[in-house]
Amino acid sequence: MTVISELPGVTEARGRLLAPPIVDPLPPQVSVAVTAGVFPAMPGTSEMHFVAALDGVPEMRGVLCLFEGAATGAADGYGRMTGRPAAALLHLGPGLANGLANLHNARRAHTPLLAVVGDHATWHKQFDSPLESDIDALAGAVSVWVQRPARSAEVAVAAATAVAAAVAPPGGVATLVLPADVSWSGGAVPAPPLPVPAPAPVPDEMVGAAAAALRSGEPCMLLLGGEGMRRPGLEAASRVAQATGARMLGETFPARHERGAGLPAIDRLAYLAEFAIAQLGDVRHLILAGARAPVSFFAYPGKPSSLVPGGCQVHLLAEGGDDIGGALTALADLVAPDTKPLPQEPARPALPEGDLTGESAAAVIGALLPEGAIVSDEANTSGVWLPAATAGAPPHDWLTLTGGAIGQGLPLATGAAIASPGRSVLALEADGSAMYTISALWTQAREGLDITTVIFSNRAYAILGMELGRVGAAVGGQAAQSLLELSRPSLDFTALARGMGVPASRAATAAEFAQQLRRALAEPGPHLIEAIVPPFR
Amino acid sequence: MTVISELPGVTEARGRLLAPPIVDPLPPQVSVAVTAGVFPAMPGTSEMHFVAALDGVPEMRGVLCLFEGAATGAADGYGRMTGRPAAALLHLGPGLANGLANLHNARRAHTPLLAVVGDHATWHKQFDSPLESDIDALAGAVSVWVQRPARSAEVAVAAATAVAAAVAPPGGVATLVLPADVSWSGGAVPAPPLPVPAPAPVPDEMVGAAAAALRSGEPCMLLLGGEGMRRPGLEAASRVAQATGARMLGETFPARHERGAGLPAIDRLAYLAEFAIAQLGDVRHLILAGARAPVSFFAYPGKPSSLVPGGCQVHLLAEGGDDIGGALTALADLVAPDTKPLPQEPARPALPEGDLTGESAAAVIGALLPEGAIVSDEANTSGVWLPAATAGAPPHDWLTLTGGAIGQGLPLATGAAIASPGRSVLALEADGSAMYTISALWTQAREGLDITTVIFSNRAYAILGMELGRVGAAVGGQAAQSLLELSRPSLDFTALARGMGVPASRAATAAEFAQQLRRALAEPGPHLIEAIVPPFR
Repeated sequence: MTVISELPGVTEARGRLLAPPIVDPLPPQVSVAVTAGVFPAMPGTSEMHFVAALDGVPEMRGVLCLFEGAATGAADGYGRMTGRPAAALLHLGPGLANGLANLHNARRAHTPLLAVVGDHATWHKQFDSPLESDIDALAGAVSVWVQRPARSAEVAVAAATAVAAAVAPPGGVATLVLPADVSWSGGAVPAPPLPVPAPAPVPDEMVGAAAAALRSGEPCMLLLGGEGMRRPGLEAASRVAQATGARMLGETFPARHERGAGLPAIDRLAYLAEFAIAQLGDVRHLILAGARAPVSFFAYPGKPSSLVPGGCQVHLLAEGGDDIGGALTALADLVAPDTKPLPQEPARPALPEGDLTGESAAAVIGALLPEGAIVSDEANTSGVWLPAATAGAPPHDWLTLTGGAIGQGLPLATGAAIASPGRSVLALEADGSAMYTISALWTQAREGLDITTVIFSNRAYAILGMELGRVGAAVGGQAAQSLLELSRPSLDFTALARGMGVPASRAATAAEFAQQLRRALAEPGPHLIEAIVPPFR
Repeated sequence: MTVISELPGVTEARGRLLAPPIVDPLPPQVSVAVTAGVFPAMPGTSEMHFVAALDGVPEMRGVLCLFEGAATGAADGYGRMTGRPAAALLHLGPGLANGLANLHNARRAHTPLLAVVGDHATWHKQFDSPLESDIDALAGAVSVWVQRPARSAEVAVAAATAVAAAVAPPGGVATLVLPADVSWSGGAVPAPPLPVPAPAPVPDEMVGAAAAALRSGEPCMLLLGGEGMRRPGLEAASRVAQATGARMLGETFPARHERGAGLPAIDRLAYLAEFAIAQLGDVRHLILAGARAPVSFFAYPGKPSSLVPGGCQVHLLAEGGDDIGGALTALADLVAPDTKPLPQEPARPALPEGDLTGESAAAVIGALLPEGAIVSDEANTSGVWLPAATAGAPPHDWLTLTGGAIGQGLPLATGAAIASPGRSVLALEADGSAMYTISALWTQAREGLDITTVIFSNRAYAILGMELGRVGAAVGGQAAQSLLELSRPSLDFTALARGMGVPASRAATAAEFAQQLRRALAEPGPHLIEAIVPPFR
């Protein structure tokens, strides 16, 4: 059992009622992604007391974001890299609403995350003043746990319970709604930490069933997800694959994929259904370890939503809250007791010459990716060459867009950098998606974070052009076409970055991109490179 | 009865299933604030069919926004200026979530607005693919009407019903959730328009009761809101005030206030409770015409939420869905049959010299505000001098932040400009609020809109500093204080604007500001002026 060993600062002192939960193992700091910018007045709500309390709790690091979506995305990045919840401080229903899209992504990533939502004083809600709204309805859509303490004496227990709910495997968003009067009244007392359940052990019979499938002589596939995309799970799966001839694939959008030289290589299930179907091929036994049975991202006319091949049997080895790595190891010990995992050989692409394209940009990134880098990948259509180009780079973490709600990449990079001092963070970002939460750049500058953002500027919602025909919608005219283009005027991301204090440059050739990326990775603090690439075809 | 006279384009043709509702009186164009940018794939969802249909419906104007909050805020601005709903096109739950804060403001403004949310195909939802979420819970929090047609044959009737629900007095957000297969399947047929109820006439006895209060000899106050802030209501209220000695005040945050020379002047109820209490003074009869009984924006420790003075009787003359102007006119005809309204004299401040401050900036704006201007006011603390400085300017419309969810100003200006060709739009914007939906500038550039944005750059969340002590939270330390400051680094709004194709300049003196504002108002297309002002004290 993991235990929350401290919950400091939940004191009875007026003005510091709620304080940051800190979870075992203790980090030196717990990041609080704080947005203090929700007009027309924070004051009168609990957030001011939370903010005022920060000076009394040096373990807390307040990080100002200029938009709630940047705060919740940063909390997601922090949680993915540490396994411990950051707290995003949000202002009533509208503040929570602005943070919802990235809370949706965090929900899909199973990231432990604490959302603290300040609300009106309990007696004030009946007056329906302008900011009043249905907070609980919004919170319920993204949270594994929502609670609203009614009295100050309940706050500490509620906070401890929230943290426990957030970190309980597989992890999730816990939302603590704090009425203003509950924050500013006396009577609060510290609460003892709560135990956190460990991941559930997987019964022997499920491991045995998977082993039987692997011994059947029929084509088998291990589909990994969640914790299965980390080193222990990958190594166990690689042993199984080596010994039995089973293939292995990763889920399409893992929260955190440990990869690179020395780790077993694994392709991810394709985003496009027809490619995913080709990958699955003639598999007869699909063994799920932390991944869900494959499903089309969207429905298409006349196509099935489930991507499980006909006649294929699905075996659930381990799901979200289970001990996925343990189950894979038990399986490997059963079917591959003497087999070693197959590590990826070190390999980097040569630095390319010529035009900058999605493909040559990927080669540059593969050539220069530092050891221990953390990649926040929201490159979308421009990113299809990235996995192959970086497969043999030194070991690194790859974080993906888990819930499909764009605007995740820059905030996620921000939180990952706060969580991981000393590591290079690379945000690979599509232009259309970048604009959603562009103000995260300002927070990166303010906090001096070592993040290099690459904007793949193709000046279009390229994925829309690509997918249009697939749903049977024909766009012949100018009115519709213009809604898919990010032109007239073109966005100048170097100006946007400089406007927020981030040094920036623009690359139009592969050589320029390589030179700029090398410099950005070497210099401390954030940088942005606008990579001018042609639209995806 | 107003009638929706056309609902073109709701055809049975595949690929153009839903089309823009157009409401009587017919505009030449109905704006659709469209965001087409919600990855990872619009395709597969109904939005692509909506977009594809645009070329077949020339009455529709598709306006691309780079973030849903910009789309919903623009739809709000369009609806406030026309009384007719624009449609904001949103992508599943996360797209709706991003648009929620400005839908909250629209809800408080009673703006007629149609939110069209594309959803997964009906059969696909059970597979819980990454973008699946509880759309209905989110929509319910801001909408007067939510419906999800289950078959293509139901779409047209649902769309007509949505428009009717949106425009039914006092107006609201109607949300039409469109599953992808309902969009792409055949079988849809055009639906006849639905009648829209007129505002409810106010019974004679309510007018009589207000008249009796006015004749009581005791201090009376007319509190106006909603349609009462337009010329007919203001003129009737002015007649009443002239004849009876009653005072008049406007609600704190009107959706649209018609004001300036030739219109009756009216102060608005103060945002800060103690000032509002002083304005209300010893009033014994408070007559509500479109406004709600005054309530503190936030609760404060030991202070009441209701601002109605002790011993004051509240008389409801007319509320939201009522014929507010008609009720005020009936009241005026009863108690002031021979009295004329008192128009504001034309008066402009002299152009100031010296430092640029909130006060001198307001004087410059008052000196230069063009006739027929539309002001989108999200200036917050920097804006306290604006009402007095512009009171005698030529007639203009003043749009305020109705729901307290910041990030409204730039999108609202965008939609107001689309709705009002030939009129100058002035967005007065606090720096902290501007960053929420800054990408609205790109849409302004793309559409060539005559909008001048003034950023009051005080480099702080000034209102937080102001209000901090009021709630009993003491901020002594650097950690807390730094969360109230927009510095380190300072935002360069001129760079941000240029990055989105909007010409921009910076003013540090009153003379510079005057010169730049004059030029921006004279030149076509959008402009931005960063007004460097000291923090609010």
